[in-house]
Amino acid sequence: MDLYSFIRDVPDFPKPGILFKDITPLIESGEAFRAATNHFHEYAQGLKLDKIVAVESRGFIFGAPLADRLGIGIAVARKKGKLPFKTFSSSYALEYGTNTIEMHQDSIGSGERVLIIDDVLATGGTANATADLVRQLGGDIVGFAFLIELLFLHGHKQLGEKNVVSLLQY
Amino acid sequence: MDLYSFIRDVPDFPKPGILFKDITPLIESGEAFRAATNHFHEYAQGLKLDKIVAVESRGFIFGAPLADRLGIGIAVARKKGKLPFKTFSSSYALEYGTNTIEMHQDSIGSGERVLIIDDVLATGGTANATADLVRQLGGDIVGFAFLIELLFLHGHKQLGEKNVVSLLQY
Repeated sequence: MDLYSFIRDVPDFPKPGILFKDITPLIESGEAFRAATNHFHEYAQGLKLDKIVAVESRGFIFGAPLADRLGIGIAVARKKGKLPFKTFSSSYALEYGTNTIEMHQDSIGSGERVLIIDDVLATGGTANATADLVRQLGGDIVGFAFLIELLFLHGHKQLGEKNVVSLLQY
Repeated sequence: MDLYSFIRDVPDFPKPGILFKDITPLIESGEAFRAATNHFHEYAQGLKLDKIVAVESRGFIFGAPLADRLGIGIAVARKKGKLPFKTFSSSYALEYGTNTIEMHQDSIGSGERVLIIDDVLATGGTANATADLVRQLGGDIVGFAFLIELLFLHGHKQLGEKNVVSLLQY
């Protein structure tokens, strides 16, 4: 199945000059959504995972079915102020300013084997900050999974020697 | 399985006087997350659904595995300004001010049988606004599903005669 045909280019979103990759046509198609989840599932099956870490909010859409299929839990990395309990936080630089994400301090057990999942790998800032949090919580990062990788932003390099999979590359 | 034991009370979140029902211990447990998804799956199986509509962002965590299990697509209702393509929007009153949610105009096909899912049914404002959008898009709302229902806020009444299921009631 050609998953590329389910990605819609939206020019000038969220700001002028940016060509946004809209994933909604893919998730709205039962066949495409299942095909994408099948790919993630195949990738994850050999990794002996204990937990999925999904990045807010589109990461939840791919991380939750994967956790369900594997019979494991899902921990969430969210924007600052969204999580109600005690958190650790990690900040990373944007073009202008910084972004901060948080995870609950009890969301990962020590030594748990973790896969980090999000919809898009761009510069790697979010994935890297999430990885920092997972390490701070004592988790063992086994890999990263993304629906889309924007190759020209070289985010892959930021993630070190880890297993990184992306289903679609631009 | 006693899913209630996986819900954590967090006092004074997001503001003083509110006792927040934290669902993260439930989703972080593989067994509890799968048990909750099993309940949603059983409820949905008889409904002949064409699409899941999940409300940002915790609704994604329950809606996406359900769509995956049923082999159907998932459309998302998001806060204003998050969706890149042409949207319809619906606003509803909060205690102070209003909230606006949006859906893509092409996210539901005419006559599609839709289940709306979110983590919590409180006053019903969000669910009702989402239902308005689904109707505007030509969808046929077959039911609503929530992990938690806050009975003292009477949100159920706002949703009319539709099928409404909640797994945990307070």
